[in-house]
Amino acid sequence: MKKRPLGISGLQSSNIPSGFDRGFEAEKVLGATDSAGELMLLVKWRHSDEADLVPARIVNIKCPKLVIEFYEQHSFWVRLPKVNQNDTSIIR
Amino acid sequence: MKKRPLGISGLQSSNIPSGFDRGFEAEKVLGATDSAGELMLLVKWRHSDEADLVPARIVNIKCPKLVIEFYEQHSFWVRLPKVNQNDTSIIR
Repeated sequence: MKKRPLGISGLQSSNIPSGFDRGFEAEKVLGATDSAGELMLLVKWRHSDEADLVPARIVNIKCPKLVIEFYEQHSFWVRLPKVNQNDTSIIR
Repeated sequence: MKKRPLGISGLQSSNIPSGFDRGFEAEKVLGATDSAGELMLLVKWRHSDEADLVPARIVNIKCPKLVIEFYEQHSFWVRLPKVNQNDTSIIR
Protein backbone atom coordinates (compact mmCIF):
# COMPACT_ATOMS: atom_id res chain seq x y z
CA MET A 1 0.00 0.00 0.00
CA LYS A 2 1.38 3.38 -0.97
CA LYS A 3 1.75 5.60 2.06
CA ARG A 4 -0.07 8.87 1.65
CA PRO A 5 2.15 11.91 2.18
CA LEU A 6 1.42 13.85 5.31
CA GLY A 7 -0.45 17.07 4.63
CA ILE A 8 1.18 20.09 6.19
CA SER A 9 -0.61 23.38 6.68
CA GLY A 10 0.27 26.61 8.38
CA LEU A 11 3.37 27.17 6.26
CA GLN A 12 2.07 30.22 4.45
CA SER A 13 0.00 32.00 7.07
CA SER A 14 -0.54 31.67 10.78
CA ASN A 15 -4.12 32.93 10.32
CA ILE A 16 -5.31 29.56 9.02
CA PRO A 17 -7.08 27.74 11.89
CA SER A 18 -4.94 24.91 13.21
CA GLY A 19 -6.12 21.45 14.24
CA PHE A 20 -6.65 22.77 17.76
CA ASP A 21 -9.24 25.24 16.45
CA ARG A 22 -10.92 22.39 14.58
CA GLY A 23 -11.16 20.28 17.73
CA PHE A 24 -8.40 17.84 16.78
CA GLU A 25 -6.27 16.13 19.38
CA ALA A 26 -2.50 16.41 19.03
CA GLU A 27 -0.79 13.04 18.62
CA LYS A 28 2.87 13.93 18.23
CA VAL A 29 5.21 16.84 17.66
CA LEU A 30 7.17 16.06 14.50
CA GLY A 31 9.41 19.07 14.10
CA ALA A 32 10.31 22.62 15.04
CA THR A 33 11.30 25.66 13.04
CA ASP A 34 11.79 29.34 13.67
CA SER A 35 12.10 30.33 10.01
CA ALA A 36 8.86 32.35 10.24
CA GLY A 37 10.35 34.54 12.98
CA GLU A 38 8.46 32.74 15.72
CA LEU A 39 9.15 29.27 17.01
CA MET A 40 6.60 26.91 15.43
CA LEU A 41 6.05 23.23 16.13
CA LEU A 42 4.82 20.78 13.51
CA VAL A 43 1.92 18.96 15.15
CA LYS A 44 0.49 15.69 13.80
CA TRP A 45 -3.19 15.19 14.67
CA ARG A 46 -4.70 11.97 15.93
CA HIS A 47 -7.00 10.14 13.46
CA SER A 48 -5.82 12.40 10.64
CA ASP A 49 -3.13 12.48 7.96
CA GLU A 50 -2.66 16.18 8.55
CA ALA A 51 -0.07 18.11 10.45
CA ASP A 52 -0.06 21.83 11.22
CA LEU A 53 2.65 24.29 12.08
CA VAL A 54 1.38 25.78 15.34
CA PRO A 55 3.11 28.49 17.39
CA ALA A 56 5.13 26.79 20.14
CA ARG A 57 3.62 29.14 22.75
CA ILE A 58 0.23 27.46 22.11
CA VAL A 59 1.44 23.85 21.90
CA ASN A 60 3.56 24.32 25.05
CA ILE A 61 0.39 25.05 27.02
CA LYS A 62 -2.00 22.61 25.32
CA CYS A 63 0.25 19.55 25.35
CA PRO A 64 3.51 20.09 27.27
CA LYS A 65 4.08 16.34 27.52
CA LEU A 66 4.26 15.92 23.73
CA VAL A 67 6.55 18.96 23.43
CA ILE A 68 8.96 17.60 26.05
CA GLU A 69 8.88 14.17 24.38
CA PHE A 70 9.88 15.79 21.10
CA TYR A 71 12.80 17.67 22.65
CA GLU A 72 14.02 14.59 24.51
CA GLN A 73 14.02 12.58 21.30
CA HIS A 74 15.76 15.29 19.28
CA SER A 75 18.39 16.51 21.68
CA PHE A 76 21.87 15.34 22.38
CA TRP A 77 23.40 15.60 25.81
CA VAL A 78 26.74 16.84 26.96
CA ARG A 79 28.57 15.28 29.85
CA LEU A 80 28.79 17.52 32.90
CA PRO A 81 32.38 18.26 33.97
CA LYS A 82 33.75 15.62 36.34
CA VAL A 83 33.22 16.82 39.88
CA ASN A 84 35.92 16.47 42.53
CA GLN A 85 34.28 15.14 45.71
CA ASN A 86 36.41 17.50 47.82
CA ASP A 87 35.46 20.51 45.75
CA THR A 88 33.88 23.11 48.04
CA SER A 89 31.41 24.02 45.32
CA ILE A 90 29.60 20.74 46.01
CA ILE A 91 27.05 20.93 48.79
CA ARG A 92 26.17 17.74 50.74
CA MET B 1 31.41 40.88 45.50
CA LYS B 2 32.69 37.38 44.89
CA LYS B 3 29.98 35.18 43.48
CA ARG B 4 29.52 31.97 45.43
CA PRO B 5 29.77 28.85 43.29
CA LEU B 6 26.53 27.01 42.80
CA GLY B 7 26.30 23.83 44.88
CA ILE B 8 25.38 20.80 42.86
CA SER B 9 24.10 17.60 44.40
CA GLY B 10 22.75 14.37 43.02
CA LEU B 11 25.90 13.64 41.03
CA GLN B 12 26.92 10.62 43.03
CA SER B 13 23.64 9.01 44.00
CA SER B 14 20.04 9.47 43.04
CA ASN B 15 19.01 8.35 46.55
CA ILE B 16 19.87 11.75 48.04
CA PRO B 17 16.60 13.70 48.46
CA SER B 18 16.34 16.46 45.86
CA GLY B 19 15.07 19.99 46.45
CA PHE B 20 11.56 18.79 45.56
CA ASP B 21 11.64 16.40 48.53
CA ARG B 22 12.79 19.27 50.74
CA GLY B 23 9.89 21.46 49.64
CA PHE B 24 11.97 23.77 47.42
CA GLU B 25 10.51 25.46 44.39
CA ALA B 26 12.30 24.99 41.08
CA GLU B 27 13.50 28.28 39.58
CA LYS B 28 15.27 27.21 36.41
CA VAL B 29 16.57 24.18 34.55
CA LEU B 30 20.29 24.78 33.97
CA GLY B 31 21.41 21.66 32.16
CA ALA B 32 20.75 18.10 31.07
CA THR B 33 22.83 14.96 31.04
CA ASP B 34 22.28 11.28 30.47
CA SER B 35 25.72 10.17 31.66
CA ALA B 36 24.15 8.33 34.61
CA GLY B 37 22.13 6.14 32.23
CA GLU B 38 18.94 8.09 32.81
CA LEU B 39 18.18 11.58 31.57
CA MET B 40 18.74 14.00 34.46
CA LEU B 41 18.04 17.71 34.57
CA LEU B 42 20.06 20.14 36.66
CA VAL B 43 17.49 22.15 38.61
CA LYS B 44 18.31 25.43 40.38
CA TRP B 45 16.09 26.12 43.40
CA ARG B 46 14.47 29.44 44.19
CA HIS B 47 15.91 31.30 47.22
CA SER B 48 18.87 28.92 47.31
CA ASP B 49 22.36 28.64 45.87
CA GLU B 50 21.88 24.93 45.35
CA ALA B 51 21.06 22.93 42.27
CA ASP B 52 20.19 19.25 42.08
CA LEU B 53 20.37 16.69 39.33
CA VAL B 54 16.81 15.35 39.24
CA PRO B 55 15.48 12.63 36.91
CA ALA B 56 13.84 14.32 33.93
CA ARG B 57 10.73 12.12 34.37
CA ILE B 58 10.07 13.93 37.68
CA VAL B 59 10.90 17.48 36.54
CA ASN B 60 8.81 16.99 33.37
CA ILE B 61 5.74 16.46 35.52
CA LYS B 62 6.45 18.96 38.33
CA CYS B 63 7.43 21.92 36.14
CA PRO B 64 6.95 21.27 32.43
CA LYS B 65 7.11 25.02 31.69
CA LEU B 66 10.68 25.31 33.00
CA VAL B 67 11.72 22.17 31.11
CA ILE B 68 10.31 23.50 27.83
CA GLU B 69 11.98 26.88 28.45
CA PHE B 70 15.31 25.11 28.87
CA TYR B 71 14.95 23.15 25.65
CA GLU B 72 13.85 26.23 23.70
CA GLN B 73 16.89 28.15 24.90
CA HIS B 74 19.32 25.31 24.19
CA SER B 75 18.10 24.04 20.85
CA PHE B 76 18.88 25.08 17.34
CA TRP B 77 16.34 24.85 14.60
CA VAL B 78 16.53 23.50 11.11
CA ARG B 79 14.67 25.05 8.23
CA LEU B 80 11.87 22.89 6.87
CA PRO B 81 12.24 22.04 3.19
CA LYS B 82 10.76 24.72 0.93
CA VAL B 83 7.21 23.68 0.07
CA ASN B 84 5.87 24.00 -3.46
CA GLN B 85 2.39 25.52 -3.24
CA ASN B 86 1.15 23.14 -5.96
CA ASP B 87 2.52 20.10 -4.17
CA THR B 88 -0.32 17.68 -3.57
CA SER B 89 1.13 16.77 -0.21
CA ILE B 90 -0.03 20.16 1.09
CA ILE B 91 -3.60 20.23 2.32
CA ARG B 92 -5.56 23.55 2.26
